[in-house]
Amino acid sequence: MKVCVNGYGTIGKRVADAVAMHPKMQLIGISKYTPDNHAKMAERLGYGIYVPAEKTADFEKKGIKVGGTVEEMIKACDIVVDASADGKGAANRALYEKLGKPAIFQGGEDDSIGKSFNARSNFDAARNEKFIRVVSCNTTSFCRVLKPLQERFKIKRVNGFLIRRGADPDDVKGSQINSIDWKANSHHSHDVNTIIDVPMTSLAFKAPHTLAHVNSLYIHFDGEPSKEEIIKVLKAENRVIVAKADSTSQIIEVARDLGLKRYDLYMPVMISNSVMAEGNTVFFSIVVPQESVVVAENIDAIVAQGGLMAKEESMRVTEKILGMDRIKKDVETVLG
Amino acid sequence: MKVCVNGYGTIGKRVADAVAMHPKMQLIGISKYTPDNHAKMAERLGYGIYVPAEKTADFEKKGIKVGGTVEEMIKACDIVVDASADGKGAANRALYEKLGKPAIFQGGEDDSIGKSFNARSNFDAARNEKFIRVVSCNTTSFCRVLKPLQERFKIKRVNGFLIRRGADPDDVKGSQINSIDWKANSHHSHDVNTIIDVPMTSLAFKAPHTLAHVNSLYIHFDGEPSKEEIIKVLKAENRVIVAKADSTSQIIEVARDLGLKRYDLYMPVMISNSVMAEGNTVFFSIVVPQESVVVAENIDAIVAQGGLMAKEESMRVTEKILGMDRIKKDVETVLG
Repeated sequence: MKVCVNGYGTIGKRVADAVAMHPKMQLIGISKYTPDNHAKMAERLGYGIYVPAEKTADFEKKGIKVGGTVEEMIKACDIVVDASADGKGAANRALYEKLGKPAIFQGGEDDSIGKSFNARSNFDAARNEKFIRVVSCNTTSFCRVLKPLQERFKIKRVNGFLIRRGADPDDVKGSQINSIDWKANSHHSHDVNTIIDVPMTSLAFKAPHTLAHVNSLYIHFDGEPSKEEIIKVLKAENRVIVAKADSTSQIIEVARDLGLKRYDLYMPVMISNSVMAEGNTVFFSIVVPQESVVVAENIDAIVAQGGLMAKEESMRVTEKILGMDRIKKDVETVLG
Repeated sequence: MKVCVNGYGTIGKRVADAVAMHPKMQLIGISKYTPDNHAKMAERLGYGIYVPAEKTADFEKKGIKVGGTVEEMIKACDIVVDASADGKGAANRALYEKLGKPAIFQGGEDDSIGKSFNARSNFDAARNEKFIRVVSCNTTSFCRVLKPLQERFKIKRVNGFLIRRGADPDDVKGSQINSIDWKANSHHSHDVNTIIDVPMTSLAFKAPHTLAHVNSLYIHFDGEPSKEEIIKVLKAENRVIVAKADSTSQIIEVARDLGLKRYDLYMPVMISNSVMAEGNTVFFSIVVPQESVVVAENIDAIVAQGGLMAKEESMRVTEKILGMDRIKKDVETVLG
């Protein structure tokens, strides 16, 4: 499967790395619109760089080798991963349609852009869909946690409380440094409902930190599952880490000590010492490493769209490429 | 050379990794005083864990295998790297003296504890010294930059302005979040003078960020070196990166994209686009990744103390182990 990545930012660069490692995929290249240090890094990593025709000279002036135009890149591939800035996907979709290429979009796009996707929850629904939307890191994490709980217990209602990171680590603008903002009825509950049928509300805060979102769930069950049962169900999930921790920095430091590239964990960390159960209500928090959680879903979406493998095999291969099984085991051991 | 690391924090864990990779060294083990997740990480990395005798039961209760007591560890080694908390080294020195072991201390100790050391500036002065003090990351970085400039030009006076990071990334207390503090006549200029003879003052600020210190130097020369000459001299240094950048986060993101363990750069980054030259005064800034800069010096100090290799060979081997040659080349290419 020939894959290209249109947009080389936080998500795009990680998806490109994963595609390059996948046994059934070939990375045709990535697109860049500015001849900056990110373009040089892509070159350093050996990726083909495709640019708008009118910008070729700008790149070459900076000594960056250009593989061709963005349109040539798209023509040469079987599927596009669109990792452009939030909201730009809609305009790009017209181009993909014109060139007859299927595409995977990100969660920053409106849900009308394509079939919302979470590997654990609805892998098979993506088969042959022309356009797929991998939901955001928070929604992906909620799905990874709620789907197994819903399979095991009857959930009556979910209330989500998110403390989002103010900016990604390499973002030097567009973030607050001394303020918390909030949004009632945030998009997250709606987005979960594009994948999982569960009554849910969400309230999202944004605070001045960069390492990870810290999201909490109040789940109202029909029944009274114990703390231990909740933890056991989530610990059995390949794409959820369950750990004891007291801060986002403690978790990220473990990722750094393990030598993980970019300290990426690829998984939400369910905080086992945050679980509080009272009657039929259970509360717990998850830490969401915002940059890397959706990488696995992008890879699985490519596989699902093209029918390359069945669900279980695809998820297993993706986890192996990203080292998720080892990461889960190591973090659960060190923060046990 | 049998080496142990007493204190397994920010510096200790990095020095332990480097010792374990050194062809002439054997890591006997590291000491831990609390059976926390850092102890579990050391176990995960395969390091022998030595604890105070009275705490052995606490560690074993948590399932952490103990290799012996701290005193046994020190007895079994040829040299101790003391990476304990600032100011604790003085008390530890008495123990090392009692057991007849040489030791390397860190820059948080008073300079009376041992011979101040910077590999580039005074490697040979450490030969056979019983106690050596690797100066702090800022002082180390200043020495790495000032020594070659002093060899090439006549420096009349240096004024240093430091913007220090408020806390290390995994520190959840002891740092400010909305304040800048300052100290005139900070210890840095004094510390540089324990190694390099140059008239110098320093003024240090501390601000709420974690990625790196950002330190600036006003250097008054006897003569008028150009911007280009300054850059050329520093670019020729193996332990100084020279790069064009606009923020600490941009530099750290490059380290992450390169997949560097813990995003450690091991070197100050001289910001080429910060250089301003006017008459006989030159101004420039350096970014100091505070966690990792002194690792190389700790390794070289062990070699120098024991007379294992001559200066150039030691520095080259240390740089190879830490991948510093590749890191310098990559960062200078991507941020060229």
